[in-house]
Parts: sequence; structure tokens; C-alpha cells
Amino acid sequence: MSRQLHFNLFLHDTGHHEASWRLPGSDPYANLSLAAHQHLARVAEDAKFDSVFLADSPVLFNDPGRRPSGKLEPTLLLASLAVTTSRIGLIATASTSYNEPFNLARRFASLDHLSGGRAGWNIVTTAGDAAARNFGLDGQPLHRTRYQRADEFLEVATKLWDSWTDDAILADKQHGVHALRDRVRGIGHRGEFFRVDGPLNVPRSPQAYPLLVQAGSSEDGKEFAAKWAEAVFTAQPTLAESQAFYADLKRRVARAGRDPDHVVVLPGIVPVIGDTEAEARELDAELDRLIGPEYALRQLAHTLGVDPGILELDRPLPRDLPDEEEIEGAKSRRTLIVDWARRDNLTVRQLIGRLGGGRGHRTFTGTPVQVADTIQEYFENGAADGFNIMPAVLPAGIEAFATKVVPILQERGLFRTEYQGATLREHYGLPRPANRLVLAGEGVR
Amino acid sequence: MSRQLHFNLFLHDTGHHEASWRLPGSDPYANLSLAAHQHLARVAEDAKFDSVFLADSPVLFNDPGRRPSGKLEPTLLLASLAVTTSRIGLIATASTSYNEPFNLARRFASLDHLSGGRAGWNIVTTAGDAAARNFGLDGQPLHRTRYQRADEFLEVATKLWDSWTDDAILADKQHGVHALRDRVRGIGHRGEFFRVDGPLNVPRSPQAYPLLVQAGSSEDGKEFAAKWAEAVFTAQPTLAESQAFYADLKRRVARAGRDPDHVVVLPGIVPVIGDTEAEARELDAELDRLIGPEYALRQLAHTLGVDPGILELDRPLPRDLPDEEEIEGAKSRRTLIVDWARRDNLTVRQLIGRLGGGRGHRTFTGTPVQVADTIQEYFENGAADGFNIMPAVLPAGIEAFATKVVPILQERGLFRTEYQGATLREHYGLPRPANRLVLAGEGVR
Ligand SMILES: Cc1cc2nc3c(=O)[nH]c(=O)nc-3n(C[C@H](O)[C@H](O)[C@H](O)COP(=O)(O)O)c2cc1C
Ligand SMILES: Cc1cc2nc3c(=O)[nH]c(=O)nc-3n(C[C@H](O)[C@H](O)[C@H](O)COP(=O)(O)O)c2cc1C
Repeated sequence: MSRQLHFNLFLHDTGHHEASWRLPGSDPYANLSLAAHQHLARVAEDAKFDSVFLADSPVLFNDPGRRPSGKLEPTLLLASLAVTTSRIGLIATASTSYNEPFNLARRFASLDHLSGGRAGWNIVTTAGDAAARNFGLDGQPLHRTRYQRADEFLEVATKLWDSWTDDAILADKQHGVHALRDRVRGIGHRGEFFRVDGPLNVPRSPQAYPLLVQAGSSEDGKEFAAKWAEAVFTAQPTLAESQAFYADLKRRVARAGRDPDHVVVLPGIVPVIGDTEAEARELDAELDRLIGPEYALRQLAHTLGVDPGILELDRPLPRDLPDEEEIEGAKSRRTLIVDWARRDNLTVRQLIGRLGGGRGHRTFTGTPVQVADTIQEYFENGAADGFNIMPAVLPAGIEAFATKVVPILQERGLFRTEYQGATLREHYGLPRPANRLVLAGEGVR
Repeated sequence: MSRQLHFNLFLHDTGHHEASWRLPGSDPYANLSLAAHQHLARVAEDAKFDSVFLADSPVLFNDPGRRPSGKLEPTLLLASLAVTTSRIGLIATASTSYNEPFNLARRFASLDHLSGGRAGWNIVTTAGDAAARNFGLDGQPLHRTRYQRADEFLEVATKLWDSWTDDAILADKQHGVHALRDRVRGIGHRGEFFRVDGPLNVPRSPQAYPLLVQAGSSEDGKEFAAKWAEAVFTAQPTLAESQAFYADLKRRVARAGRDPDHVVVLPGIVPVIGDTEAEARELDAELDRLIGPEYALRQLAHTLGVDPGILELDRPLPRDLPDEEEIEGAKSRRTLIVDWARRDNLTVRQLIGRLGGGRGHRTFTGTPVQVADTIQEYFENGAADGFNIMPAVLPAGIEAFATKVVPILQERGLFRTEYQGATLREHYGLPRPANRLVLAGEGVR
């Protein structure tokens, strides 16, 4: 079979466009609704998507006045969705900065057991001082420090997931031996950030580790991805930039001693689908009218690390902005936005319009065939192994994508018509991790 | 309607008897099986139980060689069970010593949303050095310190659950106002153990707080229960001790300025049901034969804080044992066991036999009518508001209890035949917490 596309649905209550909740058909309580998420997951599963994904941050992230802001905790919500789906992968975001490795390793191992091997972890270091202040800190740790902690966090988590061998459980009723003691081992981890004895209190799960996903694209973020990630979410506004990112990341993976085919790169796209091009463009425009520009301006100023007063709606961005090096939050997001605004010579208002929908992700506006063509173009020209689908409006956007775009790609032989594998890693064509403690002959207690 | 009994099913894979997994009908992988837990929850819900409950500790607790030891993380497992049940309450254990209040408050608020108001939290401080060593510590914090942290933890968690008012969300699409900003407030907590800004990133849930459950019965544990708990699990081997505990706890609740009727006391019982008394006793004996005494002896020595070498199977406990004050782990468990052994003049082997089934909880062995009679006796004589049902063997033990004992109690008008309320608190006849930040007019940002 030829190389196949992969699709992830980025779940986001009424849609990724920040004004989507204001559309007449939107349920403004969808962020808290199990039923709404069940429906989205089912549509994606019916379309044979590889996975669904929930973003997260341990802080009230958006202005609650402006849009649905509270969110259900992702690992719990996905544990619920595990019951109402049977094949699709379930990827939850969780922070390495504000969790303990033992607890989080346990939750993901549990989700993997509960879902029969469909768990994935989007590993984030969590930008922002507000989150830090929910955890006893005055402000966020340095960007570099957060990634150092993330690296050791993964070391601990993978050791814990390896602390039971696959064949540890004997369940010998006759002799009263449940597990073989020498196959359940302490990890005795002593590091800079963590000391963890182990073993984990959950046996090795169907996938061994959850699928490891990553989304930061700063220098440190990409090095982390090269070392640990098996799937990478990314945001690039043009084909050329996606190609450059793709090539760069695969090179880094090879340099880290891993097989570049064992990391799938998934740029985010916002498909805006109309039966005609005009219809698609009208949908785009309607959403942009619903964004309040003053609010968006404050958000933009925050990302750029400047005072909102220095931005003017109908002028370009000021020349003099803080460098990426000065940003301790989301470094790569800032650079992306600034480059885009400068290249296309956008006013602040135009920039806001483009960010409101895709937030820096590429918007594909057009007919189903046009959207499918662009996907294929990216896929066949070294820009993507698949896509992170971020519809501006939900559930309408994913229903349209599933029923109109997916069949075209299936017909072209680019996307599965049936699930072949059982686990999330099998969907993405990735190998199950070997047990590193067994390989190393380490840690037997 | 007359005062009604309450029942909680303490979920425990193949049963509370440590040898239950070795019975021919037991599934030795039940601890990892969603289907097995779904079945237990469904049986309990069909019998109109108030709740199901999962114990937990963030450490590999049992010897994995001896019995199924790994456990799925309770909040995730209950999020799955929320989907396959519709009325029964879902109580998860979580530790105040090894979690951050922001993360845990969020998970329970999420579970309450996902389940439509059926979440409960069994609040534990987690005894033992082994758990501490999974979280960067050399050994457990002092017993007193753990309870001080628990107290402040609850202060933070309840503030977070109050950080959105019930009427915060307007969802006004026309004007683009989702929540009213002055009804979503930071909590600005600054304490000895925690500094947390808030607000929570989940709106106030159906029950406002999860049902607050507690199970420690040391002096500090009871004071904590008097202040915070709405339901109390406890273990007493005799009616007289249950009565004493019941009266003592209700007095403490009143002294703490709360209504004693707003705390339900639920002793644990292990019902061993046979169609005849002889049959019930034979089931009891069969299980005890399956316990390996050397292993049980080591466990007992650990609880008592002594070297296993000083215990002899066919002699009584030594006179000279560490006092409760010297124990930093589970204080009240130790005292219970020692008192019991001394009073009944048990050998170590006999003590092990009694502990193996109920682990200090009261075993009710007999016919369905005898078990129902004992339940009624406790209920009507100031010893219990209901029971924490801990069958020695599962699912058989709960199926027998549900189909044979429950109908007798329903016939006697002591137990519901239909759910009346929708939320877990309504099942237990407890009021929904008022918003303390609103009452205090505090924290408006
Ligand atoms: C599709 C996508 C999803 C993301 N989801 C999250 C998220 O859920 N939580 C989070 O804190 N950051 C999220 N991020 C941000 C990154 O993980 C990262 O924090 C951010 O890019 C800043 O990291 P950097 O400084 O390495 O670029 C996401 C990024 C992308 C492209
Ligand atoms: C029915 C019941 C269930 C319990 N479940 C747990 C549990 O899941 N996790 C835990 O750490 N302790 C559990 N405990 C123990 C108590 O919470 C407490 O830790 C123990 O009694 C020691 O506390 P104390 O020193 O205050 O007595 C349970 C106790 C009882 C009676």
C-alpha cells in the first residue's frame, strides 16, 4: 500500500474560531458537554481518523467573558470517550511543569488500559505566569528550565512504564503466584528534578507507552521532539514553511539516532469548506465579523510581550518588538506571527482576522476538491505526514470534512477506508516501544 | 418517609478477600478490566445503591507476587463508569499529600460535570514511606503534618470550586458575552502549604463540590472528618465499637458547628451470604485456606511496626508493641488490630484469618435474613447511617447481596426501591454546598 495520510481531530467545543460559539447553531455549553464531545469523536471515528486530541493548560486561559473558557480535564474526558468509541486514538495534553511524573505516568497507563491501547499524550511545558501562580510559584520557570524538566520527566515516565515487563503477570491460581516478582522492578530514579522509586502501580499497558506527541517549535521544543516525540503538531502558514519545518525536524530526529519515519509531522489546518468557493469565503468572513477587535488586540499584545497601547488596528505592527529570546512564554508562536505580518504587510486588524480563525495555522478555504488537493499537495511534497484538523466551527466543520473531503482522499488511495490496526500507534504506523529496563538488564530488585 | 439506609459498594476487582482471585470463577485480570468494573457498578446501580467507591494509593501497595496489585487510576476509571451508569454515585480516593490542589480540584469538578453531579472524593493523607519515595521524599511527612496539609488542601479546593458562581455563565451570543467577569474570581490563596491564584478553569459543577468522604479514624483523622467530611467510612469489629465511634463522630461534627445529620457514617461490612448458615461458614473457611500465612504475617508485622521475626503463628501477639503515637502510618488500623487480638485472645494465625477477609471490618456471615437483621440492628441502634459493602468475593458477593439482602431491606421500608434524586448528595440526603466566596462577598477581581 502506498504511503497513507493521517488525520487527527483537534477537539474544541464549538470550533477553533473564537467567535464560533456565537453562531445560531452553536451550543455555548459544548465545552462542558460529554454528549457534544461524544458526537465529535464519533464523527471522526466514522471517518476513520487516527485520533482526537484535547489541548489543555492548568489555568483559566481565555477571558471567560469572551468565549467558553472552562474545560473538562482531558484525561478524564478521554476516559469517558474511550467507552463510546472503539478504534480512534485519544490524545490528552498534560503539562510536565505542573504535574508529578508518577501521577501522570499512572494516568496515561490507566487510559491506555481503559481504551485498549488508544492513549496519547501531548507533552507540553505550559507557557505563562498565570499557570505558575496556581502552583505556588511567582512566575513561570525559565523556558530552558521547563524543557530540562520535561526531558527528565519523560525519562522518569518511560522508566515507570517499563517497570513491569510485558510478561510479568502469571496469574497462577494454583500456586498463588500472581506476578513474577523479579519482573516488577523499582526504578530508583535520582535526577535533578525528580527522585522516584517506583515501580508504577499499573502493569505495562497495551501500547507500553501512550503515543508521545509534542507541539512546541522553539529550538528547545524541536530538540525535545527529536528525542521523544512520535507525532508532532505544528503551525505553519505556508507550504514553504511547512516543508522547511518538516525537513528540519526529520533531520533532527535522525541526528538524535532515531528513524525519521517513526515521527509523524502533523501541521494544523483550518478547513473552511463551501460547495462553492464563494460560499466558503462568505463563511470565513461571517466569523471574522463576530470577533471583537479590542479583545483580540489585547491577546495579540500579550503574545508579543508588548503593551496593548502601542498597537493600532489600522497600522502595521511596530518595528520595535521584543525578540524571541526575550519571551519566556510561547517563543515560536510570537516569531510566527511577526514574520507573517511583516511578509504580507498586514495591518493589526488584518493580522487579527487571520489569527482569529487559525491562530497561526494554515486556513484552507474552498470546495471539497480544492481542500483535498491542497492536502495532497502538502503530503506529496515533503510538508506533512498528515494533518491536525482544526475546524473553525464544530460540529459542522468536521461533518463537512468527514463527508466531503475524506471520501475524495479515500478514492485517491491516500487515506484508509477501514482501520487496519487496533492501537493508536498502529494507526500511525509506529512501533510499540521495547522495554528499556529489560534491554538494559537494569533495576531488577 | 422513615429514615433510610445508604449503601456504598467498595469496588475491589475479584473481592476484598486477598485470596479471592484464586477462586475458580475469578478473573485474575479484573483489576485492569473496564468490563469487570462496569458489571459491578451496574449490579450496584440496579440495586439502587447510593454509590460505588475505589480506594487508592500512589504506590504499588501489595506484593505483586501475591495478588492482583496494579490498579487503574480511580478518577479515570470512574469517568469511564460515568458513561455506563446514570444514577449511582462515583467516589474516587485521592491523596492530599501527593497531589496539587489545583489539579485535583479540577479533576473532581470535571468528574462531577461528566457524571451529571455524581462525583465523590475519598480524601486520604496516604500512609507509608513507599508512597513518599515516589514523590521526591525520603519518607512520609509526619502524621500531624499530613493532616495539616489536608486541611489547607480542602480550603484551597473549596475556594476553587467556589471561584465561579452558579450564575456566572450568561452565554449571550448577541452581545458576545459568555460569562460575567465579576462572577469568576481569583482566590488569591496564600497559606502554609499552598499559594494558588485561581480561578479554577472549570465552571461550578452540578454538585458544586464532589461529595467529601473521609476514612481515617485517628484523633487527627476524626477532627478532619468533623470539619470537612459528609460521609465517613470506618472499620469497627463490634456493634459496641461502632456505636461508640458513631456517637463520638456526630458529637465532634456538632462541636465543629455543623449539623450531625449532614454527615453519614458508613461502617464497612463484609457480608458472607449462604442460603444456610453452614454454607456461609464453608465459604468463609475456603477463602481462609487460600491465604498464605507467612505472607500475611509479614503484612501484619508491617502494620504493627515490628520485625516479622517476633511474631509466631500459633502464639498471641507479643505484649510489647509500639504505641499508636509511634506509628506514622495508619495509626487507627494498628490500634484496632491490637485491641481486637487482645480482647478475643487470638493467636497470630487466628488474627490473620480474621483480617484476611475484612481487614478489620466486620464480617456478617449468615443467611440473607440474618445479614439483613444485623444491618437493621446497627442502623436502628446508633451504629450506622448505612454501610460500605465490601464483599469477600466479587462479583458473586455483590450479586448475592443485591438479589437476596436488598429486597428484604426494601420490604422492611428501610431502603429505596427507586432513586429519588439525581445527584450523589441527593442520594445521601445531603445539601448542596453554598458558595462561600459569594457568602463572604470575597475575592471579586
Ligand atoms: C496544535 C498545537 C496544540 C498545542 N496545544 C497546547 C496545549 O494544549 N497546551 C499548551 O500549553 N501548549 C500547547 N501548544 C503550544 C506548545 O506546546 C508550546 O507550548 C508552545 O508552542 C510554546 O512552546 P515553544 O516555546 O517551544 O514554541 C500547542 C501548539 C500547537 C501547535
Ligand atoms: C473503608 C476504608 C477505606 C480506605 N481507603 C483508603 C484508601 O483508599 N487510601 C488510603 O490511603 N487510605 C485509605 N483508608 C485509610 C484511611 O484513609 C487512613 O489513611 C488510615 O485509616 C490511616 O489514617 P489515620 O492514621 O487517621 O487512622 C481507608 C480506610 C477505610 C476504613
